[in-house]
Amino acid sequence: MNIQLFDLAGAEPDRRFSPYCWRTKLALAHKGLTVETMPWRFTDKDAIAFSGQGRVPVLLDGGKVLSDSWTIAEHLEDTYPDRPSLFGCAEARRVTRFINSWADTVVIAALARLLLTDIYAHLHDKDRHYFRESREKRFGMPLEDMSADRDARVVGFRQSLEPVRAVLTAQPYLAGNRPLYADYILFGCFMWTRSISSFRVLTADDPIYSWRERMLDGLDGLPRKAPGYAE
Amino acid sequence: MNIQLFDLAGAEPDRRFSPYCWRTKLALAHKGLTVETMPWRFTDKDAIAFSGQGRVPVLLDGGKVLSDSWTIAEHLEDTYPDRPSLFGCAEARRVTRFINSWADTVVIAALARLLLTDIYAHLHDKDRHYFRESREKRFGMPLEDMSADRDARVVGFRQSLEPVRAVLTAQPYLAGNRPLYADYILFGCFMWTRSISSFRVLTADDPIYSWRERMLDGLDGLPRKAPGYAE
Repeated sequence: MNIQLFDLAGAEPDRRFSPYCWRTKLALAHKGLTVETMPWRFTDKDAIAFSGQGRVPVLLDGGKVLSDSWTIAEHLEDTYPDRPSLFGCAEARRVTRFINSWADTVVIAALARLLLTDIYAHLHDKDRHYFRESREKRFGMPLEDMSADRDARVVGFRQSLEPVRAVLTAQPYLAGNRPLYADYILFGCFMWTRSISSFRVLTADDPIYSWRERMLDGLDGLPRKAPGYAE
Repeated sequence: MNIQLFDLAGAEPDRRFSPYCWRTKLALAHKGLTVETMPWRFTDKDAIAFSGQGRVPVLLDGGKVLSDSWTIAEHLEDTYPDRPSLFGCAEARRVTRFINSWADTVVIAALARLLLTDIYAHLHDKDRHYFRESREKRFGMPLEDMSADRDARVVGFRQSLEPVRAVLTAQPYLAGNRPLYADYILFGCFMWTRSISSFRVLTADDPIYSWRERMLDGLDGLPRKAPGYAE
């Protein structure tokens, strides 16, 4: 039975930019599972209403409906235990959850602030009003003001990645000698930025930049082939 | 052969406050290993010169000399594989390293700023000049100025723990259903604050507060028995 994924897209159907959907697609590829992705826009709420909530990723797998990238990762690990593990063991799964929470609250929040105008520029026309209104309400200022000081603000973003940098100077991947879901969590954030912006969120001399290059070439080059901006 | 630890102490020899030494003591207790601790002060550089560096923890174990709490944790895991694991598996060890880096760069840095004057108040006389001079040089201001705005600054500290909070609402410990080294890393930070300050770094309604209570009662109550301030 086919696995299907509702996957956030821009005006161009192949420009898939959700960091959370990227986590799911990377996890599926890690397990060697093929997936049929369906482009979805923010305002296509009706199309995923059957999932009981309004956000993607939404995964259909063997009659099950799953949302939330972390829930989906746990589902894939439990449903396909004979395929390459996403975590390594039960304890590693629990500890990886901290990286998930950290990436959500620190990395995605900071990147959103830097890149909101770039996201807006790539949206389907039907999403633009919704996106501007909801984000300006959430952040209390016009989108353009949010990103206006990004050349200064990116310095703080790079500093917030210091815990990652310290790990990646000691080992090639967050999960050790090979990438696991811990890596996909953070890398999904960079697939988001890459898909909608040429703004350099990392400098080329950063160990995280080198790690991202390795990740782009992983999974048979799936990430690098995706529509995006090279840095 | 006895395991011995040089352990940072205040004016009172039993007031042991280093967050890094706490990680080591908690790891030893987790593995059921007894240790002879020796009070050490910042200016006792000669006493640990044999370790090739000037900071504690310094562990002596079977002829080996080890420093740096992470290195010590890995040593204990590799040297005593038949005792309870600190990580769970190789992948969990690698991912736990991120929590170590995060705690060092985010949590310890923020707590130092809040509590420098409390540390100073508990130091042995012989350490006071060294501590004031080195910390005022590092931070570029008088100790008293560092902690002056802590009632306001603690709010930001609590916010920086949001990734922990999110995990602890989903599972009782960072490592899952029971504490492992991932928990000891962060808990060591709170043993530091508890040992030298009555300043409330957490509020009682915080899931992290409840976790800390559970951790204080763990390992046969070893942490709670240590000299410190109850919150």
